[in-house]
Amino acid sequence: MRIVFFLYEGLTTLDIIGPHDVLSRLPGVDAISVSKDGGEVSADTGVLGLTATHAMADVDSCDVLVVPGGLEGTFAAAADEEILDWIRAVTADAEWITSVCTGSLILGAAELLEGRRATTHWGAIDLLEGYGAIPTRERVVFDGKVVTGAGVSAGIDMALALAAAIAGDDVAQAIQLGIEYDPNPPFDCGSPAKASPEVVALAGRTLS
Amino acid sequence: MRIVFFLYEGLTTLDIIGPHDVLSRLPGVDAISVSKDGGEVSADTGVLGLTATHAMADVDSCDVLVVPGGLEGTFAAAADEEILDWIRAVTADAEWITSVCTGSLILGAAELLEGRRATTHWGAIDLLEGYGAIPTRERVVFDGKVVTGAGVSAGIDMALALAAAIAGDDVAQAIQLGIEYDPNPPFDCGSPAKASPEVVALAGRTLS
Repeated sequence: MRIVFFLYEGLTTLDIIGPHDVLSRLPGVDAISVSKDGGEVSADTGVLGLTATHAMADVDSCDVLVVPGGLEGTFAAAADEEILDWIRAVTADAEWITSVCTGSLILGAAELLEGRRATTHWGAIDLLEGYGAIPTRERVVFDGKVVTGAGVSAGIDMALALAAAIAGDDVAQAIQLGIEYDPNPPFDCGSPAKASPEVVALAGRTLS
Repeated sequence: MRIVFFLYEGLTTLDIIGPHDVLSRLPGVDAISVSKDGGEVSADTGVLGLTATHAMADVDSCDVLVVPGGLEGTFAAAADEEILDWIRAVTADAEWITSVCTGSLILGAAELLEGRRATTHWGAIDLLEGYGAIPTRERVVFDGKVVTGAGVSAGIDMALALAAAIAGDDVAQAIQLGIEYDPNPPFDCGSPAKASPEVVALAGRTLS
């Protein structure tokens, strides 16, 4: 099974690294990373970069594609016909097409979400309808072969659910234990429904 | 406030990217990444790499250091006197010295854990005593200016707790909401106390 982690300029690194540290640990998979030209991409923070093992031109099919989100870089990727053409081609026979956070907007731009239930970061959920998707406020959404996760950290939950679908519960549980994913956040404010209005406003300013 | 994310060959990427996507979003910080020579390092999975903005020689002090864990690469880093000398020097006047997962073994090798309560990945907890630390089975451990997180995904919880200590609860909550950290793992097996013996054994084989 070939799993492809797609990297593009300005991505949010946790969006892709969460799934990377789950799905790469599935037994027997051929996991690789792909950027447009095979080189480095910068994180949306500018604090570090990620490097890919392959260029888009090297890879013409996969079993699982993971597309991360980001800020301005995501909109640039969603407007890049070369990227969209490659995503359509590489997923033509894929078993699973997945995204985290605003990565679903790239899948939408590639016309892969039409008529499908999908999620994204809470701050972008209203944009999904423009791609013919059915916006769904859940943390992980399975619709056929398309699996979308909510914002940033939801990629870990998405990938563990996908790992269970691919390899069974025991393997997924062993991976969850391996990454010691027994979350204990200091606050109960990780969704807009749980955070105070002041925190929602502060988070909105940080995101823009 | 200068925050340094330390990258080394063979690190577990989620260990550093969790804190990166939390602490880099603190308002007004100067966040950078450092590798030994300023270049690329490979993930323990071999699936992608991380690139640093700076080399060790470029950076002689910081306010916050984050040291990730990994597998063999961590033991190599913990035996590299050049890395240990740099960690001691760069943290001489630091406000916070932090690690995720087996990154605490590197702090231990740098003689920064003597007499301190500290944690690490559950599979490595017995190694902490060898560095004079007090092994502490908690997800996030504060002892003075040293903050250690448990395995891999615990770096997100560690960094949010640290963000609150640095910038207050509102800012930390806004970051938690920004990364939509409202975790909902598919299984309740993220610590050895919660997983079945079969899953613990399977995870142990994956780790070795």
